[in-house]
Amino acid sequence: MERSNNRRNDELRPVTITRNFTKNAAGSVLIEVGSTRVICTASVDDRIPQFLRGKKQGWLTGEYSLLPGSTTIRSPREAARGRQGGRTLEIQRLIGRSLRACVDLETLGERTVHIDCDVIEADGGTRCASITGAYVALVDAIRYLVDKGALEKSPIICQIASVSVGIIAGDVLLDVEYVEDFNADVDVNIVMNDRGQFIEIQGTAEKHAFTVDQLSKITDLAWSGISQLIEIQNQALQQTTAN
Amino acid sequence: MERSNNRRNDELRPVTITRNFTKNAAGSVLIEVGSTRVICTASVDDRIPQFLRGKKQGWLTGEYSLLPGSTTIRSPREAARGRQGGRTLEIQRLIGRSLRACVDLETLGERTVHIDCDVIEADGGTRCASITGAYVALVDAIRYLVDKGALEKSPIICQIASVSVGIIAGDVLLDVEYVEDFNADVDVNIVMNDRGQFIEIQGTAEKHAFTVDQLSKITDLAWSGISQLIEIQNQALQQTTAN
Amino acid sequence: MERSNNRRNDELRPVTITRNFTKNAAGSVLIEVGSTRVICTASVDDRIPQFLRGKKQGWLTGEYSLLPGSTTIRSPREAARGRQGGRTLEIQRLIGRSLRACVDLETLGERTVHIDCDVIEADGGTRCASITGAYVALVDAIRYLVDKGALEKSPIICQIASVSVGIIAGDVLLDVEYVEDFNADVDVNIVMNDRGQFIEIQGTAEKHAFTVDQLSKITDLAWSGISQLIEIQNQALQQTTAN
Amino acid sequence: MERSNNRRNDELRPVTITRNFTKNAAGSVLIEVGSTRVICTASVDDRIPQFLRGKKQGWLTGEYSLLPGSTTIRSPREAARGRQGGRTLEIQRLIGRSLRACVDLETLGERTVHIDCDVIEADGGTRCASITGAYVALVDAIRYLVDKGALEKSPIICQIASVSVGIIAGDVLLDVEYVEDFNADVDVNIVMNDRGQFIEIQGTAEKHAFTVDQLSKITDLAWSGISQLIEIQNQALQQTTAN
Amino acid sequence: MERSNNRRNDELRPVTITRNFTKNAAGSVLIEVGSTRVICTASVDDRIPQFLRGKKQGWLTGEYSLLPGSTTIRSPREAARGRQGGRTLEIQRLIGRSLRACVDLETLGERTVHIDCDVIEADGGTRCASITGAYVALVDAIRYLVDKGALEKSPIICQIASVSVGIIAGDVLLDVEYVEDFNADVDVNIVMNDRGQFIEIQGTAEKHAFTVDQLSKITDLAWSGISQLIEIQNQALQQTTAN
Amino acid sequence: MERSNNRRNDELRPVTITRNFTKNAAGSVLIEVGSTRVICTASVDDRIPQFLRGKKQGWLTGEYSLLPGSTTIRSPREAARGRQGGRTLEIQRLIGRSLRACVDLETLGERTVHIDCDVIEADGGTRCASITGAYVALVDAIRYLVDKGALEKSPIICQIASVSVGIIAGDVLLDVEYVEDFNADVDVNIVMNDRGQFIEIQGTAEKHAFTVDQLSKITDLAWSGISQLIEIQNQALQQTTAN
Repeated sequence: MERSNNRRNDELRPVTITRNFTKNAAGSVLIEVGSTRVICTASVDDRIPQFLRGKKQGWLTGEYSLLPGSTTIRSPREAARGRQGGRTLEIQRLIGRSLRACVDLETLGERTVHIDCDVIEADGGTRCASITGAYVALVDAIRYLVDKGALEKSPIICQIASVSVGIIAGDVLLDVEYVEDFNADVDVNIVMNDRGQFIEIQGTAEKHAFTVDQLSKITDLAWSGISQLIEIQNQALQQTTAN
Repeated sequence: MERSNNRRNDELRPVTITRNFTKNAAGSVLIEVGSTRVICTASVDDRIPQFLRGKKQGWLTGEYSLLPGSTTIRSPREAARGRQGGRTLEIQRLIGRSLRACVDLETLGERTVHIDCDVIEADGGTRCASITGAYVALVDAIRYLVDKGALEKSPIICQIASVSVGIIAGDVLLDVEYVEDFNADVDVNIVMNDRGQFIEIQGTAEKHAFTVDQLSKITDLAWSGISQLIEIQNQALQQTTAN
Repeated sequence: MERSNNRRNDELRPVTITRNFTKNAAGSVLIEVGSTRVICTASVDDRIPQFLRGKKQGWLTGEYSLLPGSTTIRSPREAARGRQGGRTLEIQRLIGRSLRACVDLETLGERTVHIDCDVIEADGGTRCASITGAYVALVDAIRYLVDKGALEKSPIICQIASVSVGIIAGDVLLDVEYVEDFNADVDVNIVMNDRGQFIEIQGTAEKHAFTVDQLSKITDLAWSGISQLIEIQNQALQQTTAN
Repeated sequence: MERSNNRRNDELRPVTITRNFTKNAAGSVLIEVGSTRVICTASVDDRIPQFLRGKKQGWLTGEYSLLPGSTTIRSPREAARGRQGGRTLEIQRLIGRSLRACVDLETLGERTVHIDCDVIEADGGTRCASITGAYVALVDAIRYLVDKGALEKSPIICQIASVSVGIIAGDVLLDVEYVEDFNADVDVNIVMNDRGQFIEIQGTAEKHAFTVDQLSKITDLAWSGISQLIEIQNQALQQTTAN
Repeated sequence: MERSNNRRNDELRPVTITRNFTKNAAGSVLIEVGSTRVICTASVDDRIPQFLRGKKQGWLTGEYSLLPGSTTIRSPREAARGRQGGRTLEIQRLIGRSLRACVDLETLGERTVHIDCDVIEADGGTRCASITGAYVALVDAIRYLVDKGALEKSPIICQIASVSVGIIAGDVLLDVEYVEDFNADVDVNIVMNDRGQFIEIQGTAEKHAFTVDQLSKITDLAWSGISQLIEIQNQALQQTTAN
Repeated sequence: MERSNNRRNDELRPVTITRNFTKNAAGSVLIEVGSTRVICTASVDDRIPQFLRGKKQGWLTGEYSLLPGSTTIRSPREAARGRQGGRTLEIQRLIGRSLRACVDLETLGERTVHIDCDVIEADGGTRCASITGAYVALVDAIRYLVDKGALEKSPIICQIASVSVGIIAGDVLLDVEYVEDFNADVDVNIVMNDRGQFIEIQGTAEKHAFTVDQLSKITDLAWSGISQLIEIQNQALQQTTAN
């Protein structure tokens, strides 16, 4: 089975990160991974959740949605149905945990960073693209706080990015897109920091279970992708923000 | 009081309409009116609502949301709160009624067109921009149905666009942006067809009531804006879709 | 087409306003417009919404419902379905905005007036009857506050009433009833103050768009109706409250 | 402790039943028991609930609400809160069960009777007044079905009415009103048929438990009240419906 | 008709009460009444509901559920449906009222006792078993508070238990199980204290109304059952808690 | 740091599996892992979800809850709050996916197996215990279907079990209990089949990221635990069901 655009099994789709995509949020990024496109914003709020009152620390929370028109068959709007689905909640919990892993919440101080990942076009790997883009939006929001003097120093303690790896017909494939995902035996989403350590690993095998050896191949391939994504994040962050 | 960018009272903000902004929906438009930016998609579904079973006609429905990061102070996600607010429901009912006014539902046949307007950046006039952009997305969705032979002829019976007019400190202003809207005495949203007739008019005066004369100035100004928007829609629709 | 009871096109249905219809609310009115009957109560609460804390002003909010048995085909109870429909929210937002337009919220002081409009019989024009009746209930609630010394002076700054106007088969008709509304090309709800100025205008044309000239006839007719309604309100308010 | 209006302990408040209070529902009654006033409608629907499909029988269901302005302190609207409270659900289940006890559901045929009891003024005993009034609305709805030929014969198999009895400071009181209920040790709601048999008995003693002897006095007093209510229902039902 | 296991009409099913069934809640009881099995826990919380702020008293509240697998046909999970049904709310209100009747809320002090009754196997009489078991869990929670010095003395003012009585084919039966309940003409749930006084009586006759004489037999039979249950509670409470 | 009961780092807590714990569900298991106790039932329903109509296959779905009294601080009842939390949805999706991995859905035929995991006592590892216990309940439900002739052969294609592994202060620990979990840097839940292959792996590092080497130790330890759990499941399943 050939991948679209003659992609090699260990090859990422083209990735573009556009900072300052919108202007109202403190950090705002459009990340494009092949046809998957996600708007990631980081908004800062001076309130903290109830359970952190008096603990002299901040919080970071993530939310995620598919825009209804982002999928080939329209996805019903969750706000209209009156509840977020299990998949959405699972993904946004993943986004929140992953991004909290790169922030020292005490240094952040008593404020909440809201990460919003809204998928405007879905072609597989939306949760990974969300995390990779959200990291850049988070950095921009923190820079904004530091620049205006609200924070003395950045609370960011590591850099993270995320990629999916799948097994399809026995092949281990990096950065699975929608048509591949549909046929995948195994689907693994991995979040790593810039030292190649795991923040999150979520692997699922509804069709065929996978072996310890395959897990090893999967994590190797994930790191090869994530190290590239970290480089792409860094290039985006080195640009002056005047785009 | 001067308007931003030295805008005259009867002047629209710059308007850009980008077709095929995403690829999964049958029609997909990014409309930009000044800093206000809305993704409008038109998706087609072969089912019809219960109340139209057996009536040999189609339906068109509209939905609207503000992305949380689209506003200067983050807007809580309605899906997370578990219900759409009154403002959202009011706007999406307006969008649905307005777009239905330009479609012959019998010619459309037994299918539903879903119009989704998701605001990615809000700077006033989001409901008007939504309607103006959605018209173009609708035309593209209909062309798609005609091209693939699902429809013999287009059910579109007129062209529509929408603009807001406000009264601020006695001045009647076309295409009100957010800082102006905040101070407006009167806020009127108008939808017209290409013959200068009203589809919808919704005027509100929380601060100062307005006179019959002022209403007349408002509707004149609205038509001057809407006639320009109709021209901009037509230019966008004449482009080949290969952007 | 003849109107029921040989009504002329510019003629209101018979209107009756009964004050002190119930005794627990500070203001309580039964308004009857032909067969349309609405109980409008104004209740006063010493709390204010969160967003007004510390702003030294009050608030007025409106709620609306159709009793299930008020319509020829029973309307499902919204409390049982677990959410208010879009039509309800749209109407109660209109009621709230309209009534706030006749109250100086600073003079009202830190309290909330709740306007509740519950339709016990629906025959068209329920939102207009609600607003017209609610004005009287509001005045009674304010008198109650002034009488018991809670308010030094009335915060009411103008008088309002509301009527609908429709276009059916080319005719412009005042105070549209249900069978007419069903066939209307255009349906306009107008709220005006006692100086003939607009508080709200909401016009919809799902079937046939309407012209600037028609809008002019509609607003003229509306004022002729509203000026009569204001007179009827005043007569009701001059009665001693001992009915 | 004296009762208001010098009522004896075994005396009902004045009761008025107005039939055809509104015209859209098949049966529509305003029942007034002292200051307590409830609109009871019976609407007929040709559909039956899922669980009765194919069982060749009908159904009767009850719903209940307090209008927000019906109580001295405004009752929040349940539709706005998004759920019906436990008290409401408990009452409407009682109403449904009680009214079903007087209908032969097979003779009713495959249709649903919806009983709606909306309290417009609350002064104690609202659930009992609802049941007593709903019985009359039900009879009118059945007469309507028989008159138009939809039913061959009436499915009503007995007559029911309901009253509350309380124990306050040791005294057993018939037809408890709000200020009494507030201080009651024991509160019992009883539904009986016209032969003096129990359909429902719901007794609660949050403050002081009651004895078997007291229960006996309570049920005696209840029947003395219910037999009067049945008489009042019959008088109302003998009137021609032209009020 | 014979009862299962040759039970006499006035005979309880075998009852077992296991204290300290789980260890995290302050009181935790498994009650088994025939095949009906309910876990009753009493948890203590130092907060009180809003409406009791400043009143120097505590509160007790009850909640109830059927585990989905507890019934022969699986009961849909209410948390998944997003609302508790009317039957659940009715039962948990009964549990709360009944248990509050045996607690002096001022002596309890400013804390809330949460009674949770989760049915793991349902064979009729689940609400009665819940109340009977919850009393024991409550005593254990109070003992825990007294033992750790949080309470000076027990606020428990009486002992309660509950049983159901039914009429089936004219026979009055104690402690109705599921197959009997299904065919019952009359179903009465009774809560009494240890002096044979009523706390709650809830009797329903959907099929055949019952007479004053039958009510008398029902309450006699109920007390014969409840006095046995009170004995069983006492035996359980006299055991050292080391099971 | 020593583990409770002198447990070694690679040692499971004592595990007990009680089949036929309740009698109404087709499969019913109480699993105890140390103090963690979960009731797992498997109920069979002849309906299938909408999206599988006509596909000639069955479905398996999982639901999970914490009983309110199962935790040291009472967990609010999700049915009362009106929505399941993100953690619950995440866990029940995991349960559903894991159990589906051991069933051939075509052989299962057009029916749904509902797996319900209700935690009656929580001391860490509740999701893993749920999956391990649910497997046994599933086997019993399938045996029931085969025994009554509803299924010709068992659709179960592999055996699964689940365990958690954590890293605390650098130590890799098998089967983490609550006090350990609270302090864990890394928390990994692993589901494997009886051939030592992965069905699910979900690893989270909010505090300290983990290395590829640590992941390897984690998965080794997981398999050592899971292979023991599979043995314990088999012993339980070999018992005659007459307990």
